[in-house]
Amino acid sequence: MPLDPARQGEFGFIRALARRAGRAGRRWPLGIGDDAAILAPRSGYELAVTLDALHEDVHFRLATTDARSLGHKALVVNLSDLAAMGARPLGFVLGLGLPPELEPRVLEGFAGGLLAAARASSCPLVGGDTTRAARLAIAITAIGEVPRGCALRRSGARPGDHLFVTGTLGAAALGLRELECAAPLSGLSARAVARQRRPRARLREGTRLRESGLASAAIDVSDGLVQDLGHLLERSGVGAELWLERLPTERGFARVCATRGLDPTLLAASGGEDYELLFCASRAPSAAALAKKLGCRVTEIGRITRARRLVTLREGEPVELSASGFDHFKTVAARSEK
Amino acid sequence: MPLDPARQGEFGFIRALARRAGRAGRRWPLGIGDDAAILAPRSGYELAVTLDALHEDVHFRLATTDARSLGHKALVVNLSDLAAMGARPLGFVLGLGLPPELEPRVLEGFAGGLLAAARASSCPLVGGDTTRAARLAIAITAIGEVPRGCALRRSGARPGDHLFVTGTLGAAALGLRELECAAPLSGLSARAVARQRRPRARLREGTRLRESGLASAAIDVSDGLVQDLGHLLERSGVGAELWLERLPTERGFARVCATRGLDPTLLAASGGEDYELLFCASRAPSAAALAKKLGCRVTEIGRITRARRLVTLREGEPVELSASGFDHFKTVAARSEK
Repeated sequence: MPLDPARQGEFGFIRALARRAGRAGRRWPLGIGDDAAILAPRSGYELAVTLDALHEDVHFRLATTDARSLGHKALVVNLSDLAAMGARPLGFVLGLGLPPELEPRVLEGFAGGLLAAARASSCPLVGGDTTRAARLAIAITAIGEVPRGCALRRSGARPGDHLFVTGTLGAAALGLRELECAAPLSGLSARAVARQRRPRARLREGTRLRESGLASAAIDVSDGLVQDLGHLLERSGVGAELWLERLPTERGFARVCATRGLDPTLLAASGGEDYELLFCASRAPSAAALAKKLGCRVTEIGRITRARRLVTLREGEPVELSASGFDHFKTVAARSEK
Repeated sequence: MPLDPARQGEFGFIRALARRAGRAGRRWPLGIGDDAAILAPRSGYELAVTLDALHEDVHFRLATTDARSLGHKALVVNLSDLAAMGARPLGFVLGLGLPPELEPRVLEGFAGGLLAAARASSCPLVGGDTTRAARLAIAITAIGEVPRGCALRRSGARPGDHLFVTGTLGAAALGLRELECAAPLSGLSARAVARQRRPRARLREGTRLRESGLASAAIDVSDGLVQDLGHLLERSGVGAELWLERLPTERGFARVCATRGLDPTLLAASGGEDYELLFCASRAPSAAALAKKLGCRVTEIGRITRARRLVTLREGEPVELSASGFDHFKTVAARSEK
């Protein structure tokens, strides 16, 4: 059954979407189709609840966005928040504001990408709300579970803690710039675009990190490393030194940045949308040992300090970064719209 | 501290809002300020999860909407869904899409109304997401609790069940029309406008109904009685006869409708935004006994039937209603924008 709210009406559309979504599974005695979904929580567990929204012409433009990728990303940005808590996804509700002129094939693509990401992460669609809106608006609330008292928080970092990040930084931000130029994409440029469009959430790594008991604090890198590190430091009441020359990037990243006139360090430090995990650990396992534990690349990139400020160092010398990350209101001029 | 994202930035705004919201309470070990909020569910309880969104120029116009009422209503439409499940509210997350040109006083009013409604219903703000958007967009996910296996559902109605509704119908729809005319408001007109702007959710009544064990099925009346009854019938696989002359309305409702050239029955049957509870009961307690149990007016308005269709009767004779309620896509032309 196609997805076409203009012909199906609100409720026909919801039925068609529900059919594609399938059953929510045994943790949900009641899924789509009632006034609310019903979740049966597991004894001994707490629930992590997060909401992230994407708005047309702010977070994406329909002209340059692949609809399937948009659906994928709308869920994954929420899953990344669950990953940062060390939570396992249980399901999500979807708020869709649909412009009447939205083409059915866009909605098809969106739903396909969204539900594929839902299946891949065992995070079923269990309910929501569909209405008209002047621009396409997507709000998702994802719910995950975590053993009682074990959620990773932003607030536990202590002076002396080692600062680690998973994976690599800056590629998604590079991908955003690559999308804006008309040149054909290959190699790292193509991979960077893919990462921009279809990020993945570090769910498995977040769970393993929580199980390891090593992390004193954690956050996901969505607004940019420096910005998100700032949140973690603020909540923990500490500062940090950040070693810029250690920031992990893709092979060839600096070279591609150079050809584009971009500062690779700035992009890695503040580009945003990396959806990596940034975390602190008081004991000092090597990054290699952590990488083995989590099953992904892990790099030590700094140290937590008592002084409540963030000092960026390059080869041990303090340097200033010219931009510090994404703020939805303050940096409108500094950052072009996606 | 004022609310002014253009000056405070995204994170300053969130801090200011969090300060006003206050502590989330003991059921939330972690509230605003981390990657996700953490909820500690009560043993023996299930959770009801519902999302409802309001979009500028679809659900409201800033020119005619009182911002404080908008904040109130944004939460209450979600609480009404919890009420229909017989759930007690635990908290909510808020997705706010803010146009850059939105006046701070609108945001102040909105937040004031929202947080007052949150306090009044013991449903604290525990997290969310604030971004820019082309038009004001409000998405709320509310979570409530209900004893395991006891949630009221749409799906349990059986042939022969009595059909009841709480309170009165049509006043909110009348209020919407009154808002559109420039005449000064008094009496019922003013009360109807108040009901349109500041609905209340039947939380206490929903809980009592659930505790009574009498309801076989329930739904809240948001899109209009006939529309919502249709949802209940569809989920239950049954039909109903609806006694139009019994629909409960405010005193003087028919008279005011007449002066406006409105059909009072049509308004009561399909006007929408009543936020009353529509429910079925197999045993036949009198409406008076139910009213005493629930602590509000209760009216018997029909009977569930085996034939899977809805028959509207007036004084025992079948009549056709010319419109059946609100569909966000199908009835764009039929219903003027609010």
